Amino acid sequence: MEYKIKALVFDVFGTVVDYYTTIISEGEQWNQQKGWQVDWGAVANAWRGRYRPFMDRVMRGELPWTKLDALHRMALEEVLNEFQMTGLTEEEKEHLNRVWHRLRPWPDAVAGLTRLRQRFTLATLSNGNVSLLVDMAKYSGLPWDCIFSAELLKVYKPDPRTYQMAVELLSLQAHEVMLVAAHQADLRAAQAQGLRAGFVRRPLEFGPHNIPDLTADSTFAVVADDFNELADKLGA
Amino acid sequence: MEYKIKALVFDVFGTVVDYYTTIISEGEQWNQQKGWQVDWGAVANAWRGRYRPFMDRVMRGELPWTKLDALHRMALEEVLNEFQMTGLTEEEKEHLNRVWHRLRPWPDAVAGLTRLRQRFTLATLSNGNVSLLVDMAKYSGLPWDCIFSAELLKVYKPDPRTYQMAVELLSLQAHEVMLVAAHQADLRAAQAQGLRAGFVRRPLEFGPHNIPDLTADSTFAVVADDFNELADKLGA
Repeated sequence: MEYKIKALVFDVFGTVVDYYTTIISEGEQWNQQKGWQVDWGAVANAWRGRYRPFMDRVMRGELPWTKLDALHRMALEEVLNEFQMTGLTEEEKEHLNRVWHRLRPWPDAVAGLTRLRQRFTLATLSNGNVSLLVDMAKYSGLPWDCIFSAELLKVYKPDPRTYQMAVELLSLQAHEVMLVAAHQADLRAAQAQGLRAGFVRRPLEFGPHNIPDLTADSTFAVVADDFNELADKLGA
Repeated sequence: MEYKIKALVFDVFGTVVDYYTTIISEGEQWNQQKGWQVDWGAVANAWRGRYRPFMDRVMRGELPWTKLDALHRMALEEVLNEFQMTGLTEEEKEHLNRVWHRLRPWPDAVAGLTRLRQRFTLATLSNGNVSLLVDMAKYSGLPWDCIFSAELLKVYKPDPRTYQMAVELLSLQAHEVMLVAAHQADLRAAQAQGLRAGFVRRPLEFGPHNIPDLTADSTFAVVADDFNELADKLGA
């Protein structure tokens, strides 16, 4: 299979990094420290579950442009209430909120990206704000060539302009760029702007009891179970 | 000396990379191949000399927004005429124009950046377009955490908004960000927006016969002769 792909842009949360187990891992330390018995897998999914609704409020104009850090913080306040986690100082809340800057990569991610980077330009294309993505890359050793974020346009994916922006900033044609994501809707939105779709299945994104739809569209150019398989299939 | 600096943003052309000797080095190959006897040091300075006037035309609205790649190409056409270099194919011109994507770092640059990156977030803040900066980083091994470019705003430095953009995308306060540049005017424009100034002297930017003004303002927070000295002075 011959590809003219020159650059890969990556969805990040769930595709490159594993927020579910990272939040559990940090959460268990909070349980110990605070004497809580909180189910942090449930917290992870509740927190992440508020991600889309908050971005939708921004996109409907009910909120002004707001960085994802600040949306995460607004969602965190609701989650703290829901799980009856009380008594955190402002500093503790801020540290907890920045767990999104410390997310750990899936086990295959750094090795796969390192291979892919030899052959392709690699960029994020994430709703995370730039500083979040930069911190995460430094913390977890993600070898990006550059950081593209919805923040650059102040509109959230799947707004068509986010995919167009990546193509334009790379000085490429849309068909020379592949979005890599674990989420079909993101891939379909990218395809609608002419990008190729690379679907990487992440069955454990929401934990072992909430397996997502892993069905690949026949129009996806590549389907892989991890970034090493993606590198194999792309000849990297 | 105590610094609260968290991120360094870098001017690139002349500060990080040495366009003068890179253009001479590639130019000597053109001379051989074409039987020319062109003085490529003079070409480098003539080409670079058209950089500011072309950007000024964009900023005055006489040209629409134009990526630096395209401004370089317009300037190249003039330089080819001036130096009577004729007969290049479109493909050859395009390859020559992309020498700006292949600029080599000053000898201290990669080592200094690698040290600085352990302690600070490092970004470009350049008038080069994003794809130019990404290509250059891959080609020359420049270890950026992220790529900021005038292209993100479609206004060229020293427009104040370019410095403000870097601060905003880093989610920092202006005084936590230092611009590192070999050019006093760039540093003064950054200082006017609250950033700190790191002056790195590059006496050979224009070659051995055109030494620039190397005078440091007393308001510059750091003055250094190369990136290793900069790292020393910033405690990295």
